Amino acid sequence: MHIADRMDAIQPFHVMALLARARALESAGRSIVHMEIGEPDFITPQPVIDAGLAALAAGITHYTPATGLPQLRERIAGFYQSRYGVSVAAERIVITPGASAALQLIMAMLVNPGERVLMADPGYPCNRNFVYLLNGEPVGIPVDAGSAYQPTARQVEQYWDDATVALLVASPSNPTGTVLDTETLRGYHAVTSRHAGALVVDEIYHGLTYEHQAETALSIADDVTVVNSFSKYFGMTGWRLGWLVVRDEFVAGIDKLAQNLFLAAPTVAQHAALAAFGDENIAILEARRAAFRERRDLLLPALRDLGFDIPVTPDGAFYLYAGCSRFTDDSYRFSMDLLEQAGVAITPGLDFGHYRPEAHVRFAYTTSLENLEEGINRLAAFVNRI
Amino acid sequence: MHIADRMDAIQPFHVMALLARARALESAGRSIVHMEIGEPDFITPQPVIDAGLAALAAGITHYTPATGLPQLRERIAGFYQSRYGVSVAAERIVITPGASAALQLIMAMLVNPGERVLMADPGYPCNRNFVYLLNGEPVGIPVDAGSAYQPTARQVEQYWDDATVALLVASPSNPTGTVLDTETLRGYHAVTSRHAGALVVDEIYHGLTYEHQAETALSIADDVTVVNSFSKYFGMTGWRLGWLVVRDEFVAGIDKLAQNLFLAAPTVAQHAALAAFGDENIAILEARRAAFRERRDLLLPALRDLGFDIPVTPDGAFYLYAGCSRFTDDSYRFSMDLLEQAGVAITPGLDFGHYRPEAHVRFAYTTSLENLEEGINRLAAFVNRI
Repeated sequence: MHIADRMDAIQPFHVMALLARARALESAGRSIVHMEIGEPDFITPQPVIDAGLAALAAGITHYTPATGLPQLRERIAGFYQSRYGVSVAAERIVITPGASAALQLIMAMLVNPGERVLMADPGYPCNRNFVYLLNGEPVGIPVDAGSAYQPTARQVEQYWDDATVALLVASPSNPTGTVLDTETLRGYHAVTSRHAGALVVDEIYHGLTYEHQAETALSIADDVTVVNSFSKYFGMTGWRLGWLVVRDEFVAGIDKLAQNLFLAAPTVAQHAALAAFGDENIAILEARRAAFRERRDLLLPALRDLGFDIPVTPDGAFYLYAGCSRFTDDSYRFSMDLLEQAGVAITPGLDFGHYRPEAHVRFAYTTSLENLEEGINRLAAFVNRI
Repeated sequence: MHIADRMDAIQPFHVMALLARARALESAGRSIVHMEIGEPDFITPQPVIDAGLAALAAGITHYTPATGLPQLRERIAGFYQSRYGVSVAAERIVITPGASAALQLIMAMLVNPGERVLMADPGYPCNRNFVYLLNGEPVGIPVDAGSAYQPTARQVEQYWDDATVALLVASPSNPTGTVLDTETLRGYHAVTSRHAGALVVDEIYHGLTYEHQAETALSIADDVTVVNSFSKYFGMTGWRLGWLVVRDEFVAGIDKLAQNLFLAAPTVAQHAALAAFGDENIAILEARRAAFRERRDLLLPALRDLGFDIPVTPDGAFYLYAGCSRFTDDSYRFSMDLLEQAGVAITPGLDFGHYRPEAHVRFAYTTSLENLEEGINRLAAFVNRI
């Protein structure tokens, strides 16, 4: 039985075992507070659902072009103009089946076997695996509070070698929630340009920022690649819809890859997303953003009070990445014990990389204030017993 | 500007240039008969649309598990039992975002860089490119009418070498419409088993057969991989939903890959597909199958009368793969001239492989009898002028 070597490199999400245990406990009647889930608890806003219903009722069920509905590409270009004041030609925007597909497309375009992609450690677990898929080598740059859990341009320069072809960063970051400022992005771009490499910026948590609006990396240069999604800010996870913005010279190649790998993104999702940028929908999304901020502002001081180490205030996404060294030197064990003994599910650091995962856990505030309060109470009782 | 080497190997669909020209002609007011489109002209049957509407109206918009809705996996297992009399455990069935994702998952599981996958030439163009994505080497086995455009087990044995890891076949085949019988499948399985390789059978056109029902390759052994789709027989192209059936030992690996590469298939599509196996829906699909057969039975003799060479009666899918040597030694030129001069769009052989593409064209009967009659008349006038 022959299996490809990459199957050893690609790891399942470790949180899955914890999730399975949480479900088993719930089936047995236990109450579990979920602070491990990387998906908004809100369902898709009604204006988008209504647009999806209308498309289905009209029998719009055939394929779209591989690069997506032209009017949706235009709508996204308009959003870059109105929200960020940045002009992006619709032709550079490719609609994808989720940001997952967007990440895969750009990595397939860039990475030969043996070539390296730099990324933050901790970071989004799938990023490594998109590189392993292509037999490339993901290289984690260890990041900590000193640089707000983002690589510095100096680190990028240090880690860049002849086999390196790209830097992949995320703003806001999963799991740390920190946002890149324009100066840092410009620093990255200077390094990648010097080496004729690519700068790829994951902006899938854009919109979910609580201090000030993040700037898109598209504002700094035309050759930056940006990945975005309708899943998080727009609340459309299950629709599987994202997009990719690439330089002009990449469009034909990305189109050709998308034709072959995916054919097209789901049609009803694309028609539904046409309603995502309307005033009524944006008002709903902004109310949700306020709700997420309220949750963060409850959870963050409570965790700090309990003794979790969160030295940088996360200003985006819906995650808090917390040092747990006061309680444990094994965050996986800690998370499993917390689940078993206190009925609180969180994500151990292990899924996010190799840099001190045993000393960190991730809390997601994708549940109600009431649930968060209950979770905090359970957590307090649990750590006070340690 | 660094680009991965695979981008040279992966070709866009050549028919896209022809399609773009067809659209330009239509925009200028010309009537075009479309016999190039690999998608049923029917919209999704109403019972499935209704199930999708109900799911959306109920606000079911979150992610499903990476392997798909458990009840849909059960439903598909039930379909294998009722339609084919084959027991397949639901756990071996993984729901995917289209058959494209299913093909990608199994190739990623099997193929290291430099390793080879055997496939029929002519065949589905993306198959080569799933292998190129992984820096593997797709090896086309030239097939012709003598073996009903399918490889013989003897050929598979001849082409197998130390670097070969899998045989990928399709039944019914695109572009040739021919179906594999059980004996041939058993012959393949004997060869792949002897070499500890994998047999992967694309059954996405299953259900669309006109002589007798095709048997699933799952009936011959538990270690065969089968790719299937809701797109063709079930008429759900734009929903992007397919499935993969693998041996028990592969399930955990496929799950891990699916988590990382796709997260999950579209949620509304999965809920809609739950209605795909109901009696009312199957009755609609069977009526459509009868319509496809009627179209084939109009088009096939008409093309033969005009002088196209179709030595094997295609008994499935909705394609006729026709030799055009009586008219041309350049099927691409022939197709472009046919479009320009007669307003009929067909697909030149070029997209399907390297074995005599210049001598073949593909006709799709994904349009009404009236359109096919008009197309035949235009085609007759065109070839009579040659």
